[in-house]
Amino acid sequence: MSAADPFDPSTNDVGRLVVRCPDRPGIVHLLSGLLTEAGANITDSQQHSSDPSGGTFTLRLEFVLAGLADRRAGLEDRLAAVAGEWQLTWRLTEAAHRPTVAVFVSRADHVLQELIYRVRAGDLRADIVAVLSNHPDLAPVAAAAGIPFHHVPMTPATKAEAEARALELIGDVDLVVLARYMQIVSADFCSRFPERLINIHHSFLPAFVGANPYQAAHDRGVKLIGATAHYVTPELDAGPIIEQEVARVDHRATVEDMRRVGRYVERQVLAQAVTWHVEDRVIVEGPRTIVFT
Amino acid sequence: MSAADPFDPSTNDVGRLVVRCPDRPGIVHLLSGLLTEAGANITDSQQHSSDPSGGTFTLRLEFVLAGLADRRAGLEDRLAAVAGEWQLTWRLTEAAHRPTVAVFVSRADHVLQELIYRVRAGDLRADIVAVLSNHPDLAPVAAAAGIPFHHVPMTPATKAEAEARALELIGDVDLVVLARYMQIVSADFCSRFPERLINIHHSFLPAFVGANPYQAAHDRGVKLIGATAHYVTPELDAGPIIEQEVARVDHRATVEDMRRVGRYVERQVLAQAVTWHVEDRVIVEGPRTIVFT
Amino acid sequence: MSAADPFDPSTNDVGRLVVRCPDRPGIVHLLSGLLTEAGANITDSQQHSSDPSGGTFTLRLEFVLAGLADRRAGLEDRLAAVAGEWQLTWRLTEAAHRPTVAVFVSRADHVLQELIYRVRAGDLRADIVAVLSNHPDLAPVAAAAGIPFHHVPMTPATKAEAEARALELIGDVDLVVLARYMQIVSADFCSRFPERLINIHHSFLPAFVGANPYQAAHDRGVKLIGATAHYVTPELDAGPIIEQEVARVDHRATVEDMRRVGRYVERQVLAQAVTWHVEDRVIVEGPRTIVFT
Amino acid sequence: MSAADPFDPSTNDVGRLVVRCPDRPGIVHLLSGLLTEAGANITDSQQHSSDPSGGTFTLRLEFVLAGLADRRAGLEDRLAAVAGEWQLTWRLTEAAHRPTVAVFVSRADHVLQELIYRVRAGDLRADIVAVLSNHPDLAPVAAAAGIPFHHVPMTPATKAEAEARALELIGDVDLVVLARYMQIVSADFCSRFPERLINIHHSFLPAFVGANPYQAAHDRGVKLIGATAHYVTPELDAGPIIEQEVARVDHRATVEDMRRVGRYVERQVLAQAVTWHVEDRVIVEGPRTIVFT
Repeated sequence: MSAADPFDPSTNDVGRLVVRCPDRPGIVHLLSGLLTEAGANITDSQQHSSDPSGGTFTLRLEFVLAGLADRRAGLEDRLAAVAGEWQLTWRLTEAAHRPTVAVFVSRADHVLQELIYRVRAGDLRADIVAVLSNHPDLAPVAAAAGIPFHHVPMTPATKAEAEARALELIGDVDLVVLARYMQIVSADFCSRFPERLINIHHSFLPAFVGANPYQAAHDRGVKLIGATAHYVTPELDAGPIIEQEVARVDHRATVEDMRRVGRYVERQVLAQAVTWHVEDRVIVEGPRTIVFT
Repeated sequence: MSAADPFDPSTNDVGRLVVRCPDRPGIVHLLSGLLTEAGANITDSQQHSSDPSGGTFTLRLEFVLAGLADRRAGLEDRLAAVAGEWQLTWRLTEAAHRPTVAVFVSRADHVLQELIYRVRAGDLRADIVAVLSNHPDLAPVAAAAGIPFHHVPMTPATKAEAEARALELIGDVDLVVLARYMQIVSADFCSRFPERLINIHHSFLPAFVGANPYQAAHDRGVKLIGATAHYVTPELDAGPIIEQEVARVDHRATVEDMRRVGRYVERQVLAQAVTWHVEDRVIVEGPRTIVFT
Repeated sequence: MSAADPFDPSTNDVGRLVVRCPDRPGIVHLLSGLLTEAGANITDSQQHSSDPSGGTFTLRLEFVLAGLADRRAGLEDRLAAVAGEWQLTWRLTEAAHRPTVAVFVSRADHVLQELIYRVRAGDLRADIVAVLSNHPDLAPVAAAAGIPFHHVPMTPATKAEAEARALELIGDVDLVVLARYMQIVSADFCSRFPERLINIHHSFLPAFVGANPYQAAHDRGVKLIGATAHYVTPELDAGPIIEQEVARVDHRATVEDMRRVGRYVERQVLAQAVTWHVEDRVIVEGPRTIVFT
Repeated sequence: MSAADPFDPSTNDVGRLVVRCPDRPGIVHLLSGLLTEAGANITDSQQHSSDPSGGTFTLRLEFVLAGLADRRAGLEDRLAAVAGEWQLTWRLTEAAHRPTVAVFVSRADHVLQELIYRVRAGDLRADIVAVLSNHPDLAPVAAAAGIPFHHVPMTPATKAEAEARALELIGDVDLVVLARYMQIVSADFCSRFPERLINIHHSFLPAFVGANPYQAAHDRGVKLIGATAHYVTPELDAGPIIEQEVARVDHRATVEDMRRVGRYVERQVLAQAVTWHVEDRVIVEGPRTIVFT
């Protein structure tokens, strides 16, 4: 939730600036001055110092600037002018911009359904432009939502071609979401979507990393089961965690019960992670994330 | 949790600035500049606009400034110099300062025990300087913790004198905590501790406002019971809410079971509220609070 | 979750017996004997004594009985034979039976969508046979799910006829769910569906009983918002509570933010309550419920 | 919570029977009959079938039997008479019996303090008869509570003797609780306390099994940290899980912050597990537990 409500009709004038740089006194002053001089009113500000004695400083500002679309270039020029001296990397977005999203699925529909629901409800400001699956089962779900569905079968032998075909079909989307895709994507595919490829792992990572976490959780007699949404990286087994949640189970829960309970946790966790991502609230810092909720 | 760890030995140099003023572009820039010029490094910044189109702006900054104790007066002079023009009200505190707290109790010890535990554990940076009760029961608890205990009996007829005696005994403490005190304090008493008098109400306000909320909750068959920590004001039935929490109960819970479950919620909620208060994280805004967690 | 998995294909042989009677030693022995003699294996047993020294005893048994459908009448005869002496009231159901449900809505679709999703997913074993609304807006949602939609406009003046029309349209359904219907149903309507009419109230009852609880919650500055699913009764302002849940909000939440957060709590709470109801897990006991989860 | 309130003064007549046997129709009938004939009124009954088609059946009954202490032997005779035929193993306890507990600690006091608090508050019906540590630090905590404190230094070289000394000091206690003991107990020690040795692991098992889970959790950037209470067994790395809980952290949390948050989760989880254990609610079933809450 933020003071500058991204769901408000006046969203046209709402901008977000996410900046990272070496931590140095004066950086907040510099950036707030730059926005103020440009006529913006800062409505939300969140920051994080990885190490106050000299690490990386991260800042997310939300602001209202009348005529943002037209004055954006000017703002970028101002940022560019100081970027060198302060070693800034930055991202300037308009809240009105709706990122494009491709959702990769297998046969389970619960997470896809939730993403479609939240987009329709206006709670997730993004456009799902493609659903892609290695099985044809969910074509009707995509059709009902008016989203193009692409069936791309995949075997270990055909993986490279299948991924190439997938890339061709989804085009240059802003975000790829693996919504219980059940396939390991290649390092090459990952590197096409740096910090723009989100997966839901149906367990509370790093516990039960393997293929059938609910069976493993049942065998171990856990009292809580969980789910983890994370960025996918070529290097890591599972990349930076964005969000996690758990639900309580007891000794009566069969493996199938755990799967059923788990589906509700998965849809909640992935939908939350995707929402934060498209609102520019998630910043990757090495193996971790900063999430300005 | 904050980047400038208040539990760190270097806390001596950690300061906090809480500012309120009419919302106007440039205020963040002004204050960050003022701190930067004074040599401070801002390690945490949180802000809130009650209404971006012209309400009240609230800012909480945490900063590290070498030699803060000596340079504090200079900082205050700088703030005073701009306060008029910007209509600032502010509070500047040193994280190393330990506020003094008087805890008012009746017979139940669970919240008092928790506050004592957290102070000892170093999780609540305050000094409990007095325990005051209208019953003698908890004298041993205070004694075991080395805290002066004052027994001030109170009847409707003797309320004014008893409160006067209480005020005399606790002196000019920074904070008064009603930890299941079970007495209504007078408007006059309240006005002595504006925004410095915290009560735990053993229900999820505004439900069950009355005297025996657990009985009322049981009669109504609720599935969750809660507790609410709030500031006490002379005007309001229950003043601005600082924190609330709930716990699950089921049809098997008797009224006594609910009380037992409730005690653990109460101690958690009040201890959290007091901790946020002494870390200058709570700002009263009319009938509500802003809590920068 | 239960040992006799209602989602299992062998559900055909799974039965449930819910019994209420004055609490007296020997009742468990009597009923377990009765089932055992009939060849049933009790797979789950939950009980509750409203007052061990002589109140009402409630028992829910799940059992597996080969050929249940054919042998059910015999079981009922056995129960009837002892009912008089022990003052039993009972309900014997087959887990394979899918209750029929009519869902009453207004313009908001979130709870309806969730019920449809859970039926499709197999997590809610019931058949939604009608959606009825005083507005035409959700006709497409019902159509997409293949459920008949009835538009019955309602004004204070036409309430009696409109309810009569509604009753005619939905027929003799097992359960009526008010899924953000936004209309007060008449006492007469309530009495047609005793303990079979469930409402979701978009607040944490008994707080914020009125018409706009999110505005009221915002004005009061609460830190948790909630929702309550309850049976509707002619007598009570809000009948026996089945389930409640809360979600955390902070000072940044606008009224609209609270509504948004609230929608997710509402759908969860109502879907859970309906699921427990159709699994014969909820028993009304005066102003309260017993819920054998 | 249970209908037969273990906190009630009439607890003298409250008994508990926990039974395990091969699952066979008629077992509930047999045992309820046996209790009824003995004059008992069953006030709570919970059961679990590990596999309805022929696994292990577990039953926990709570009952009121006037003059339980005197009539207990008779009840045991009845149970013994059928035990052979039905292959029963059972445990019959009186709620009034207070088990003796030895608590093993190292330097951290938070879990010990919580156990002491709950015993005093009457929420944990057990007697802590010894605190044993490899460090002298917590002697004053034990002394303040009037509990004998034993300092038994331990090095890898002296482990066997130290454990022998510990056994001698604690005698034949009903339960040993490792409350952040930070030492691995020997398989021999474990086998002295089968299903009577509880440990708190300061992580959400099976994640972060190692020695410094908070550091590991921080490195991994998790969003939830947890704690796990489990029985200690000679064979397993970590034995059957009794209870788990988590708390939310964010990117601002340092390792020290995580430890601080973790302490509150640990004390809650271990105190809950110990309470359930002494109320005969936990039954070990291979690598898992059944917990009749």
